[in-house]
Amino acid sequence: MAIEIFWGSGSPFSWRVLLTLEAKGIPYESHLLELSRGDHKKPEYLALNPRGQVPTLRDGATIVYESIAIMAYLERKVPEVPLFGVTAEETGGIWRVICEAICYLDQPTEAFILPIYGGAVTPAQAEQVRAALPAIRNELSRLEAALQGRPWLATAALSAADLAVFPMVKSLLRAASKPAASAFEHGLTAFSARYPALAGWLMRVEELPGYERTTPPHWR
Amino acid sequence: MAIEIFWGSGSPFSWRVLLTLEAKGIPYESHLLELSRGDHKKPEYLALNPRGQVPTLRDGATIVYESIAIMAYLERKVPEVPLFGVTAEETGGIWRVICEAICYLDQPTEAFILPIYGGAVTPAQAEQVRAALPAIRNELSRLEAALQGRPWLATAALSAADLAVFPMVKSLLRAASKPAASAFEHGLTAFSARYPALAGWLMRVEELPGYERTTPPHWR
Repeated sequence: MAIEIFWGSGSPFSWRVLLTLEAKGIPYESHLLELSRGDHKKPEYLALNPRGQVPTLRDGATIVYESIAIMAYLERKVPEVPLFGVTAEETGGIWRVICEAICYLDQPTEAFILPIYGGAVTPAQAEQVRAALPAIRNELSRLEAALQGRPWLATAALSAADLAVFPMVKSLLRAASKPAASAFEHGLTAFSARYPALAGWLMRVEELPGYERTTPPHWR
Repeated sequence: MAIEIFWGSGSPFSWRVLLTLEAKGIPYESHLLELSRGDHKKPEYLALNPRGQVPTLRDGATIVYESIAIMAYLERKVPEVPLFGVTAEETGGIWRVICEAICYLDQPTEAFILPIYGGAVTPAQAEQVRAALPAIRNELSRLEAALQGRPWLATAALSAADLAVFPMVKSLLRAASKPAASAFEHGLTAFSARYPALAGWLMRVEELPGYERTTPPHWR
């Protein structure tokens, strides 16, 4: 029985999992939910994931949700192409970067992208966007520093840290290119000049085999 | 060379790591920082952990920070007494609970306990405390439901999920017992009547060997 993934187009959390599946070469059955139609709040989906969020994995009788937990599940299930390190030192470094992403990058990223993707930014949302920007800039600077003289974020090889962070950075850039973003001093223009190491790293991820299959369909 | 832990008394994040070390029976050298004196913001500590937070692990030349990353490091370093599951299904379930704690419980817990531990709650802090309470109640209800008819949160045996969540719940109860908490309808009184399964689970964790060595010194 194939691994099934329930996901949403444009959800950076979903993207993490698709990138992990491709990096490991794991075949999967895709269930693309229509978030704008509220598929993720319907009873049949809430039975899989009571928080009504994407993504969710189903593997036979096993159900896992929360994007990072799914990545850890896939690592244990298919150890080939290790993405969480081989040595304890690598494992610690990879999880450190992932935990930093969860704690300091994910929430500000969502606070920035969701109002802008929505188009009509209310005054309260504008306040939320502005409040998120310092944290976003701080995290991007840290990531830029981490990539000085090295191709990947946590270890010499591609790791789960790269796959967890990439969809966040890419979503920030996507949102920054929208008309609604022009009202904010987001500092995400001229990205490759401001963050040259991050720009190179984005390209390396985009050159991975299978990458194209993971990009949000409605972005294409 | 012994594993060294830099930590702070009363930090639930530090407590997670101490509980993990005891559960695995790993000897360690303790460096208790005086947070009220700002030890965690001093240059020698920032050289280990640039975010200036506790805990941090040093193991020879390896430095790991972020509490959950340290737990994952210890699991890889000392696999005995597995805390992240043996099967992929267990691993997925444990990480799901941990990710839920990081995303939905840690921040509201801090928003509640820090102002109350501080004693003099400002109006802005009071607003922050009140805003955190619905999320806290929601997460406690989910944890209570998860423990119906089972002793541990994620698997049949004690796991990292229990050790990650325990210090948060315990810190909530500690803060709720403080005079400054009486100004809030926090719903943490009569805890064992409201959350009987959680209360039993707290006791099971407290009966673990080595537990006493992990409790915050200034609580004793």
